[in-house]
Amino acid sequence: MSEDAGSIFDEAFRAKLHSLIRWRRDVRRFKPDAIAPAVLEDLLGLAALAPSVGLSQPWRFVMVDDPERRAAVRRNFEIANADALADCGAERKALYAKLKLAGLDEAPHHFALFAEPDPSQGHGLGRRSMPETVAYSAVMAAHTLWLAARAFGIGVGWVSILDPSAIASTLEVPESWQFIGYFCVGYPQVEDDTPDLERRGWERRRPDGAIALKR
Amino acid sequence: MSEDAGSIFDEAFRAKLHSLIRWRRDVRRFKPDAIAPAVLEDLLGLAALAPSVGLSQPWRFVMVDDPERRAAVRRNFEIANADALADCGAERKALYAKLKLAGLDEAPHHFALFAEPDPSQGHGLGRRSMPETVAYSAVMAAHTLWLAARAFGIGVGWVSILDPSAIASTLEVPESWQFIGYFCVGYPQVEDDTPDLERRGWERRRPDGAIALKR
Repeated sequence: MSEDAGSIFDEAFRAKLHSLIRWRRDVRRFKPDAIAPAVLEDLLGLAALAPSVGLSQPWRFVMVDDPERRAAVRRNFEIANADALADCGAERKALYAKLKLAGLDEAPHHFALFAEPDPSQGHGLGRRSMPETVAYSAVMAAHTLWLAARAFGIGVGWVSILDPSAIASTLEVPESWQFIGYFCVGYPQVEDDTPDLERRGWERRRPDGAIALKR
Repeated sequence: MSEDAGSIFDEAFRAKLHSLIRWRRDVRRFKPDAIAPAVLEDLLGLAALAPSVGLSQPWRFVMVDDPERRAAVRRNFEIANADALADCGAERKALYAKLKLAGLDEAPHHFALFAEPDPSQGHGLGRRSMPETVAYSAVMAAHTLWLAARAFGIGVGWVSILDPSAIASTLEVPESWQFIGYFCVGYPQVEDDTPDLERRGWERRRPDGAIALKR
């Protein structure tokens, strides 16, 4: 066991942690300033401490810097976004467009996240009856990075309005990899403890939205 | 915008957050002590602040207290666990059995987590091309609770060696709900910053396991 006192967390820390969780936002508007490479490395190192099924660490982060690949991701988003708009009523459509859902044009850093569906690490433990736990592990790595980034004043935006197979082909990743999400990272233009979608009238967050049933 | 200084996090907080992430464990051995209801409520309230696609908050927590339902979940685990063992070599099988994978017998609190695959909240935003983002949102709620619990000295164990359809029927939840995982919650018997699976020789964590590719 490690000698440090990392296992002891006090009330002051819990209050700050509560703030962190409350102030984490899905960020769409970024400043152009780059993040120091050491900070990006720290964030990825923390992500690698996320829970994973059978300790398989199946997350595969792909940093996307090449302008042509970024442009292809942007086109992918535009097509999927137009498709998503097709079903919307006129009012929601106008709002939806205004939401400027992707920080793709502004964020200085982009990464795609994939999961390796059959990692040798972990020896298959825990995922036989629920193979989706591999994807869930990658999601928790992204979420770990997201929370830790917030503690550095860094914003993250998750883009899911994309065609996964086109992303995999744009980024030339192994065929078996499952696309989890595409992430924009940078310093946010504004900070707020109210979700952007709520401020723009798309949806309200329910603070009591957790317990559904008792059995 | 809120008036509090929740958006400002300093180096000392980041160091503690790093410890929190490093000391979060998948806990299997619990003390029998119950958790104060107010603390459980706090944890569920924090979970409800997790990111969710289109702000849809699709997580559905089901607290499981009834002894008969708990016994049915335990049987479900035993069957799935025996099935998982069928493919193992003798050495791994012995280790696997010793791992005592479920805290099901010891944990004072149990909950199952489901996702509502087609929530009206969020108006479908962001999940048209990737409907799995609804499940991913529920995973992030569980992960939020898991981290926050650690800050209270509370351990969480995720049980995934289960047949999802049998769980849904045992807990009599709406048919549409997707089972995400079953969780044991309580005060851990021991604290450690090394994963249980690593201490028992199942697998080692790779600290540099995050960046896979640059594109």
